[in-house]
Amino acid sequence: MEFEGAHRYQQPVASEPLRPVRWCDDGLLLLDQRKLPAEETYLHFSQSLGVAQAITDMVVRGAPAIGLAAAYGAVLAANEVRVEDSGSWLTEFKLLLGALAASRPTAVNLGWALQQMTVVAETFEGNQRQGAQPQNSADLVALLQRVADQLLADDLRQGVQMAELGTAQINPGSRVMTHCNAGGLATGGVGTALGVINLAWKQGSIERVYASETRPWFQGARLTAWELQRQGVDTCLLIEGAVAMLMKEQSIDWLIVGADRIAANGDVANKIGTYGAALLARAHGVKVMVVAPQSTFDLEIASGDEIEIEQRSGEEITDVGASRVAVPGVPAWNPVFDVTPAELIDLIVTDKGVLEAPFGVAIQTLLK
Amino acid sequence: MEFEGAHRYQQPVASEPLRPVRWCDDGLLLLDQRKLPAEETYLHFSQSLGVAQAITDMVVRGAPAIGLAAAYGAVLAANEVRVEDSGSWLTEFKLLLGALAASRPTAVNLGWALQQMTVVAETFEGNQRQGAQPQNSADLVALLQRVADQLLADDLRQGVQMAELGTAQINPGSRVMTHCNAGGLATGGVGTALGVINLAWKQGSIERVYASETRPWFQGARLTAWELQRQGVDTCLLIEGAVAMLMKEQSIDWLIVGADRIAANGDVANKIGTYGAALLARAHGVKVMVVAPQSTFDLEIASGDEIEIEQRSGEEITDVGASRVAVPGVPAWNPVFDVTPAELIDLIVTDKGVLEAPFGVAIQTLLK
Repeated sequence: MEFEGAHRYQQPVASEPLRPVRWCDDGLLLLDQRKLPAEETYLHFSQSLGVAQAITDMVVRGAPAIGLAAAYGAVLAANEVRVEDSGSWLTEFKLLLGALAASRPTAVNLGWALQQMTVVAETFEGNQRQGAQPQNSADLVALLQRVADQLLADDLRQGVQMAELGTAQINPGSRVMTHCNAGGLATGGVGTALGVINLAWKQGSIERVYASETRPWFQGARLTAWELQRQGVDTCLLIEGAVAMLMKEQSIDWLIVGADRIAANGDVANKIGTYGAALLARAHGVKVMVVAPQSTFDLEIASGDEIEIEQRSGEEITDVGASRVAVPGVPAWNPVFDVTPAELIDLIVTDKGVLEAPFGVAIQTLLK
Repeated sequence: MEFEGAHRYQQPVASEPLRPVRWCDDGLLLLDQRKLPAEETYLHFSQSLGVAQAITDMVVRGAPAIGLAAAYGAVLAANEVRVEDSGSWLTEFKLLLGALAASRPTAVNLGWALQQMTVVAETFEGNQRQGAQPQNSADLVALLQRVADQLLADDLRQGVQMAELGTAQINPGSRVMTHCNAGGLATGGVGTALGVINLAWKQGSIERVYASETRPWFQGARLTAWELQRQGVDTCLLIEGAVAMLMKEQSIDWLIVGADRIAANGDVANKIGTYGAALLARAHGVKVMVVAPQSTFDLEIASGDEIEIEQRSGEEITDVGASRVAVPGVPAWNPVFDVTPAELIDLIVTDKGVLEAPFGVAIQTLLK
């Protein structure tokens, strides 16, 4: 096994409803998204380092799902702390969280989830210092697990709320395009953009969904098409190069995407290709809806210019699957996110309400 | 062998300079572009039907190269005509050309080259009717071959002319992006857009070239990177989804592309992704240069709306190499060209001169 403390889990049947991140048998169970759609395989993690490696290696991807995986990774980390002195328990715990925090740089949910876990651990320790009833680290681990479970439950509830709020914005007969995978696979199971699309489809508002294949990882072709097909949604793939022509000729009403991080002014970091698609949407009168829970907002970042964009290996572009596409020695530029400026976005659908421009004010009001 | 009358040719060494389409050993020799960059393999064709199949199957691609292959295919067709009555020789010849004409729909050069060959054959037959010196069909075949050779020589000369005219437009220190492959592989050997880029690089005007990988066939990753590397040009690949971010952040000066067909008003049909890239170029202050010989212009087509756009199988998107990327049963929308409206284009560089807006007038003047 390539990840520390992980093994392939013998899952007898495909999960229904979709639950790509969950706690099971004293460890974290992740649907291995690298194997989709060919195989629905689960990996079981009993060490936090393995979870960090799995996030880096994209076993799990999608900002909210990464956050949940990290939260459960923190539970494993809490179990791994081995010190006698309770004063350094927290130090050791935070060290272990460091590997999780460093596993992917762009998604805010990762840091947000780890911050939640850290605050819980700090509060626990603070209570002990103040002479509260003595507790042992097993109690803390149990507490952290309840917090992680609550984050997952919150994610699922927020997914339903966003789906309902977003669907209310979509007129019957709409044709929509989505990019990358902002579905159940990117979250606890309901999804952000795909949560809206699935519900709007069920309610009859959406006539057809176009999904961009999303190079270099093919999240659209591999994951979004798989999820939408599970839900019976009429889906058609296209390459990113065809997005402009699609918008010009196929009467697209909405571009609906998720987000990895939203700055205080409403600038949105999301999968590479989102910015271009949003610019093309504006040029063709297609409205842009970003769907993201509150945890995706990062008020410490004033605008998209400050968002760190992850650059990954050029081999993700030059090599496809096991085979090399490009001539050896040619480099590739591989930023995996881009920033869509707020002025290209029509609506940001959150679990607490639908935001419209000017987003800076709306976001402040929302998160107050 | 998958093509009628074709066999793999034992080419002892890689060709230098690049000659992807040429006559050799009484047949047409094509560099098999599907195998690049892993292998530099040549196929030898002795039947016109095999040439048509090879064009459909993209052994040879790129509008000018397709035209040249079709011209040599017409030479083979002329050899295949088997009728006693000279009156129906032409009818039979035209029937055989039909398969070549139907092999790809969008590139104008294909029809243009076949038209040249047809006119030569008709003139030959007309001369015979008018009692000119008796000639046999072997003479006609020889004549057609000289015409095809001349088309190839013209293509190479025009490539050099376009390279010089285009290079003169590029300021020192420029950073350029190209899309698909408009290089030697797409022509007789010099190229259109890549002819300009190669010469401008040699003259020191270009600092760096970005090439989009060009899904679904990866012409950028497979062919353009291979060609530019042969020429020692500093090249970096990117996915189409990253084009907007590239133009925003990497100080790109020019988008330089080829064309498959140019309408009378200057609208340009080219590889899918060109229209989107041109819109993104306009949004970021990047200038757009289209490089194409005179044969690419189609004055019978008033605007891009009338250009037939080839739709190919969705499996070109859902399957990559031997492996299926998407879940079975999901369709894909696969137009392989798009139309860039003339208003998004700054310059059209032809072998006869550089055109600027308004293109309708400039094109009329050029082709007069």
